[in-house]
Parts: sequence; C-alpha cells; structure tokens
Amino acid sequence: MRQLYSLCGENGVSYSPHVWKVIMALHHKQLDFTISPVDFSTISKIEGGAFSSVPVLRDGDRVMGDSFDICEYLEQAYPEAPSLFEGDGGRRMARFFESYCMSMLHPPLSVIVALDMYNVMGESDQKYFREKREGRFGVSLETLAGRGAAERVVLNERLAPLRDLLTNQPWICGDKQLFPDYIVFGTLQWCWIVGARDLLAENDPVRIWFSRCQDLFGGVAREVGAT
Amino acid sequence: MRQLYSLCGENGVSYSPHVWKVIMALHHKQLDFTISPVDFSTISKIEGGAFSSVPVLRDGDRVMGDSFDICEYLEQAYPEAPSLFEGDGGRRMARFFESYCMSMLHPPLSVIVALDMYNVMGESDQKYFREKREGRFGVSLETLAGRGAAERVVLNERLAPLRDLLTNQPWICGDKQLFPDYIVFGTLQWCWIVGARDLLAENDPVRIWFSRCQDLFGGVAREVGAT
Repeated sequence: MRQLYSLCGENGVSYSPHVWKVIMALHHKQLDFTISPVDFSTISKIEGGAFSSVPVLRDGDRVMGDSFDICEYLEQAYPEAPSLFEGDGGRRMARFFESYCMSMLHPPLSVIVALDMYNVMGESDQKYFREKREGRFGVSLETLAGRGAAERVVLNERLAPLRDLLTNQPWICGDKQLFPDYIVFGTLQWCWIVGARDLLAENDPVRIWFSRCQDLFGGVAREVGAT
Repeated sequence: MRQLYSLCGENGVSYSPHVWKVIMALHHKQLDFTISPVDFSTISKIEGGAFSSVPVLRDGDRVMGDSFDICEYLEQAYPEAPSLFEGDGGRRMARFFESYCMSMLHPPLSVIVALDMYNVMGESDQKYFREKREGRFGVSLETLAGRGAAERVVLNERLAPLRDLLTNQPWICGDKQLFPDYIVFGTLQWCWIVGARDLLAENDPVRIWFSRCQDLFGGVAREVGAT
C-alpha cells in the first residue's frame, strides 16, 4: 500500500496545496494509498529524516518528495493508467502552471488565509506558524488578516487567464483534466479546506471548474472537507 | 509556396504578435513561406474577404485564420517535421499560455507601446488606429503614452511566472522550445519591433530567453527588425 505523508490540521484533514496535487494525481492514476498525517514538528522525522517539506510518497521501496517529481514518477511507473501529461510536451508545459500558481496566486492567498490556516492547526503548529509568518510579514497574523480584502482584489485580477480559458472549455486542459488542473486545484483546495470558501463569485467560471474538480473521484476532495 | 498575410508597418516589417507566433512556427516546422503585407484597410480584402484579422495562411488549397488554429493545422499536416506540441497534452496545455499573454501581458503592453505602434504605421493606418485606440481608452494616444511608466511596473510584476521558470531552464518548455515559447515570444517581439526594447532589465531571465528566441532560425526575428 502506498503511503502519502501529508500536513494535516488538528482534525486530520490535509490542507497543503502540494499534497492535494498528489492526492488528485494518485486518484487519476487509480492507485490506492493511505495518508500519514504529519505536522510541522514531525516533518523532519519522516522516513528517517531526509525531507523538510511534504508531500512525501512511499511506493514500495521508493521514497520521494516534491509534488512535481512525484507525479513524473507516477506517470513513468504506471504508464498503463490514465496519463497525467499526455506526452512529453505536456510534461514540459506543466511546469508553467506551477510557476503561475506559486508566483501569482500564492502571494495574495498567503495573506488571505493566514489566520484561517492558523485556526485549523494543532497547538504546537500554531506556535511555529505564527512565529514564521509574523517574522516573514513583520506584523501579527491578525493585522495580516486585515489586509485580506485588498489581496482578494489582487487575486481576482490574477485569475483572469484561468477565467478566460474556463469560459470556453470545461477543464484547464480542454475537454478533460490533466495534471495542470490538479496543480491549480491544489492551490484553491488549500484555501477551501481551511475555510476560505467565498473567494470567487458563484458564477465565476473558475469557481464552477473548482466545483467540477471536487466532483471527481467520487467527490473525495469535497467530502473530506465537509464541516 | 505558402503565403502568410501579415500586418506590417510602413517599412514592410511584421509587427503583429499573432503573426509572429506563426512565423516562428513555420520556421520550427522547416516550411517555406512568403509574407504578404497588409494594413488595417486591406485585411478585409484578403482571400476574397473572409477574414477580419491576421494572420491568415494560404497553404495550397487551404486558407485559414487564427494563429492557434494555424499551428494546430501545421502540426497535423506536417507530422514528420519537428513537433510544436509534442503530444496531445502539449496541444491542450498550450491554450493557457495564450490566455496568460492576452489577459496578463497585452493590457499593460497595449498602453506602453500604443504610440510606438502608431509611429511605425502608414498614414491611413495611423488615422484608423488613433480613432480606435482613443475611443477605447478615452484619451489621446499621447496621454496614453504618459501612463506607460506605471504600466511597466504592472508588466514586470506579471512576468514573474516566466521569470521564475526561466531562472531554472533555458526555454519555457524546458531544455527545448515548443509552441508556448513562440506564443510568449510573439507578444514581446511585437513590442521590440515597434521600438520598445528596454522593457526588461538586461539580466532579466525573460530578456535572456527572448534574445535566445531571436537567435533561432538564423536570427530571422532579430534581423528583420534591425534598424
């Protein structure tokens, strides 16, 4: 049985965007797995201490980190299962979606959901997270949360390329979903899980697509975050 | 011989971003072609009047518009030549690069280069373009140009996903260029041709990559714009 190490809230629910990419990719590949919850203080103990972030996947004798590397491994190791990239061009182009999410969407989202993230964590993670975030932004988490409204404007503007695309097609990759759909999904699922569920207007094509992603694989991504 | 209808300046040089995508794709596919220059007033006369924009490509009996459609056609019609997409996944994912350029980069660039574009046009195009742009923005082209400095800040921020990507790899598609490289290249080449050559800092990975694109195919994209 495959084992996916995942950062989880106090309720045991995965909230890391990078873990969610791999959860969706494993389902896409029709592969069984169990989730091993970790928190910030136990990441360094995963598999003897070789990793400083999650996801980490154990598949038999293989242990690896980094969501993109893991998904490239899954594509190669399970070629008979539905493809995540549909060819070498897809594997090459998928990197840009990652870069877009990290440089355009994560900065405003990190402000918008900082306090929400804090609220789902266990006590020792809360202490660690507050120190780290307050050090990075130079203000308290509560002050940071007050900047959320302005960052929502930035976020909405930066979603324009997805919004335009999804006005014309049901998935980011056309008439079916591939790994880039899961890359962007992971980013928004992170926010949805911690409680930011009103980031997008109801008729926003990005929200409609997000809901379509949550319907995949028996609705696993929605079910796990049901309150 | 293939014939590519292209919007050209008074000096006969192509400046349309969408035409440049197809010029680069035709070279990538190692296909001969000639450029038939048109201006705004003659677009409606191309091939009997079926088109309202360029590029338009005639290849034997086939005539078609839209840069993306043209490149999908080239990929299908010339499968033995170097691939533009490297598989169906690449063809699917390439749409997002188009959407990113159109919604994130073109809006600030349309302000930054409006007056530069005007200056390369013939007299009748100048009249048409001034009317259209001034109608769209509600100010004179000269006033619009005054907003260029602010829009450069916006542009630079929105180039972050490309900048991050190109810090780690030579091409947008990894260790070789595919159609998405030409999509983004077309956008920046449009500005370079009309004279906006200082949009990016000299050590910006995006500028270094742009120069790498201009070196392709015997330096055709640089040579044609030599002043």
